Amino acid sequence: MKTYAELSKSELEELEKKLLEKYAKVQEQGMKLDMSRGKPSTAQLDLSVTMLDMVNSGSDFMSNDGTDCRNYGILDGIPEAKQMMADVFECPADQVIVYGTSSLNIMYDTVSRSYTHGVMGNTPWCKLDSVKFLCPVPGYDRHFGITEFFGIEMINVPMTEEGPDMDMVEELVASDEAIKGIWCVPKYQNPTGISYSAETVHRFANLKPAAKDFRIYWDNAYAIHHLYEDKDMQDQIPNILDECEAAGNPDLVYQFASTSKITFPGAGIAAFSASKANLEDVKKQMKFQTIGHDKLNQLRHRRFFGDHDGLMAHMMKHAEIMRPKFELVEQSLRTGLGDLGIATWTAPKGGYFISLDVLDGCAKRVVALCKDAGMILTGAGATYPYGKDPRDCNIRIAPSYPTIEELGEACKVLVLCVKLASVEKLLADK
Amino acid sequence: MKTYAELSKSELEELEKKLLEKYAKVQEQGMKLDMSRGKPSTAQLDLSVTMLDMVNSGSDFMSNDGTDCRNYGILDGIPEAKQMMADVFECPADQVIVYGTSSLNIMYDTVSRSYTHGVMGNTPWCKLDSVKFLCPVPGYDRHFGITEFFGIEMINVPMTEEGPDMDMVEELVASDEAIKGIWCVPKYQNPTGISYSAETVHRFANLKPAAKDFRIYWDNAYAIHHLYEDKDMQDQIPNILDECEAAGNPDLVYQFASTSKITFPGAGIAAFSASKANLEDVKKQMKFQTIGHDKLNQLRHRRFFGDHDGLMAHMMKHAEIMRPKFELVEQSLRTGLGDLGIATWTAPKGGYFISLDVLDGCAKRVVALCKDAGMILTGAGATYPYGKDPRDCNIRIAPSYPTIEELGEACKVLVLCVKLASVEKLLADK
Repeated sequence: MKTYAELSKSELEELEKKLLEKYAKVQEQGMKLDMSRGKPSTAQLDLSVTMLDMVNSGSDFMSNDGTDCRNYGILDGIPEAKQMMADVFECPADQVIVYGTSSLNIMYDTVSRSYTHGVMGNTPWCKLDSVKFLCPVPGYDRHFGITEFFGIEMINVPMTEEGPDMDMVEELVASDEAIKGIWCVPKYQNPTGISYSAETVHRFANLKPAAKDFRIYWDNAYAIHHLYEDKDMQDQIPNILDECEAAGNPDLVYQFASTSKITFPGAGIAAFSASKANLEDVKKQMKFQTIGHDKLNQLRHRRFFGDHDGLMAHMMKHAEIMRPKFELVEQSLRTGLGDLGIATWTAPKGGYFISLDVLDGCAKRVVALCKDAGMILTGAGATYPYGKDPRDCNIRIAPSYPTIEELGEACKVLVLCVKLASVEKLLADK
Repeated sequence: MKTYAELSKSELEELEKKLLEKYAKVQEQGMKLDMSRGKPSTAQLDLSVTMLDMVNSGSDFMSNDGTDCRNYGILDGIPEAKQMMADVFECPADQVIVYGTSSLNIMYDTVSRSYTHGVMGNTPWCKLDSVKFLCPVPGYDRHFGITEFFGIEMINVPMTEEGPDMDMVEELVASDEAIKGIWCVPKYQNPTGISYSAETVHRFANLKPAAKDFRIYWDNAYAIHHLYEDKDMQDQIPNILDECEAAGNPDLVYQFASTSKITFPGAGIAAFSASKANLEDVKKQMKFQTIGHDKLNQLRHRRFFGDHDGLMAHMMKHAEIMRPKFELVEQSLRTGLGDLGIATWTAPKGGYFISLDVLDGCAKRVVALCKDAGMILTGAGATYPYGKDPRDCNIRIAPSYPTIEELGEACKVLVLCVKLASVEKLLADK
C-alpha cells in the first residue's frame, strides 16, 4: 500500500473525489457530537451517586477533630479529607490544603497571589518588568489561559517521550531570572498521555533556577487515572515532593489535584500540596480570602471512599468505562490511517486524552471539516500558548464523553477528515 | 441612682472592691465560652439538614436548562440558583453570578481582580501609587483585612443612625481619584445592626466619584435576616441596583450575599449581583479561574427552599432562635448598665451583632477581663481598620452561638466586666 505522499497528482485527485463523496454522506447524517473537552461520561458520573447519601439529614456532621462540618472554620480542610488527598499525592497530610471544587481555581489563585504579593517574600510579579513561564507543548489550554491573562510571556518547550525537553528546561531556568514557573502535567499528560520518566522527575527536582521564586506547577490531574488494573500497565512516576526534598530543593514545587474526574467535575474537591514553608506562605493569603471551603463535601468524599484502597477500587470502575474508548480510538486510527504516512498519535495508558499529529498545516482544516460534519473537537492550536500551534499539526482527542457507539462513528468521521485534509494539502503542494 | 461619673473616689473604691469580689467568684466558676464570631448555633444548623436529602443517589441531577449538575459547565450558576439569589437581591436573575461557598472569597477576588487587571479597562490598581478605600466604622474586620492585605489605605468614616456619614463620603469620593471603593453592610450592619436609611441609599446611588473605577462594595450579608415576623419590625432599604440605575450610575455598585447564615456557613452558596456591564467584566476574568462552582450544592439549595416564600419562611425559623438571644442581651445590658452612664449599645432588629460602646479607653480592658473569666469576645479594635479603635470604646457582641442559658451567664459576666473596667478608668482619672 502506498503512503499518500507517494500518490501521483491524478491519484490524489481521484482519492479526493471519493473522500468528498463520503464526506457529503456523513454531512447528510446530521451528526451532533461535542468532543471538545475531557468530560466524564454519564456512566462515570453514575459511579459516584451514592456518595451523595453519605451526608444526609440522619448523619452526624463531625469531622475526626470534632468540628461540626456545617459551621464555620477549618481553613485548610478537615483532617480526613487532607489524608485522602495526601494518599493521592503520596505525601503526609500536613503537606496538603483542601480547597473547593476546582484545582484550576487553585492554580489561578497561586499565579494571582504571586502576582500581587510575591512568593515567600520575593518581589510581587506585578512589580517586575518581565515574568515568563515555560510551557511544555502540546499542553493544557487552561494552563496557558491563566498565564496569558496575567501577561506572562510563555515559552514553548517541546514534549519528548519522557516529558519536557529537560536540556532546554535546565538551561532556560538557570539563565533567566524572569522565568518563574513551568506548567507540568507529569502523569498521563494533557494531551499526549505521556508520563514523565524517573529521570525527568529527578532532573526537575534538581533544577537550579536563577529565580528564587521559580516554582514547578505540578498539575497531577491524572495521578490515579489508569486505564488498566495490571500494575505493569500503569505508569508510575517518582514522588516530586520527595525528590525535591532529597535534592535540597524542598520548596521548588507546587502540586495540584482534584476529584473532578474521580467523583463529579461539577461538585468535587480540589487540593494543593507542597513543602510546609510553601503552605505557610499560601495560608498567609488564604486566611484573608475565606473562612473555609465546603467541609460537608469533604466529609461526603471521605466517607464514600473509606480509605485509599476504596478510592483505587473506584478508579478501576472508571477504567472499565474508559479503557474500551481509548482502545477503540487507537484501533480506529491504526486501521484508518496506519499505513498512510499522514498522521501519528499517542496510545496512553491513562488520563483523558489522545494526541493526534497530522501533516503540518492540516490541524485547523481537520477540525473545521469535523465541525462541518457535526463533530466538535478541541480547537486546533488550543494545545499551544496563545492558541498558536506553529506547525498547525496537533489535535487533542477527548474520548471520554461520547458513548462507545458515538465514539465509533466519531472516529470514522475523524479518519475521513484527516484523509481529506491531507489530500487537499498534498494537492496544493504539487 | 447616681451615674458612675457622679461617684466620689471613695464610693468608686468601695464599688471596685465589691466588683472584684464578684469577679473572683466568676473566675472560680471556670466558664468557657467563645463569642468571638457570628457563628450560627447548632439549633440553627439543624434547621437545614433536610436540604442534604434533596440531592441523593435517587435524584435526577438536571438543572432547569437541562445541564447535568454533576458534570463540568455553567460558569455563573444554574438558572434556578441564580433566581433564588436574585430574589434575595431583589434583582433580575441575569444580574447574578452564583459562586462557591464564601461571599468573602468573592469580595477578595473582586479586590484582587481590580488590583491585577483593573475595573472595566481602567488602570490595574497595582500600577497606581495610591489606592484608598472608605471604611464605615465600626465595621466588619474581614472587610478591612482584605484591603489591608492589598496595601490599600483605609479611611475611617463614622457610622450614624442612618448609615455612614454621607457628607463625608460624598466629599471624599468626589475629591480624591485614589478612592476606589467603600465597604458597606447596608442592612443590620456588622457590628451595629443599623440599617441604612432610604436617604443614605439614595445618596450612595447618586455619588459622583472622581475615580471612574470607584465601586460601592455592598455586602448585603443580612438582607433577609430579620428577628421579627411583623413587617413593621423589619428593616427595609431601597434596592441599590435600582437606585443606581435610576441615578444614571448603573455600574456604581457590586453586591454580595451568601447562604452562610441561611443554610450552612461551612457548605452554603455565595452570590454576586451588579449591572450587566460589571458582570461581563467579572466573567472575563472568571473564565480563566474556573470552569464552574459546585452545581449540586446549588441544586440542593434551590430544591430545599422551593421558592422565595419557602426561603422567607425558613428565615423565620432562624428568627425564632435568634430573637430571644438579642432580647436577652438588650434586657441584660439595660438592667445591668442602663442608668450608670458607662455604656451605650444598639438594639438591632436583625443581623448577627450588637455593638456596645463603653467609656473611652475601656474596650480592651473589658475584653481582657472577660477573657480572664473564660469568655472570648471579638478582639477590641477588630471593628476598625488596622485593628485600631481610636477611642478604644467599641465591643462587638455576637449572641448567636451560645445557648440561651450560656448567653444569660455571659451577659452577667460582660456587665460585671464593663462595670469593673469603668470604675478602674474613673479612679485612674481622679
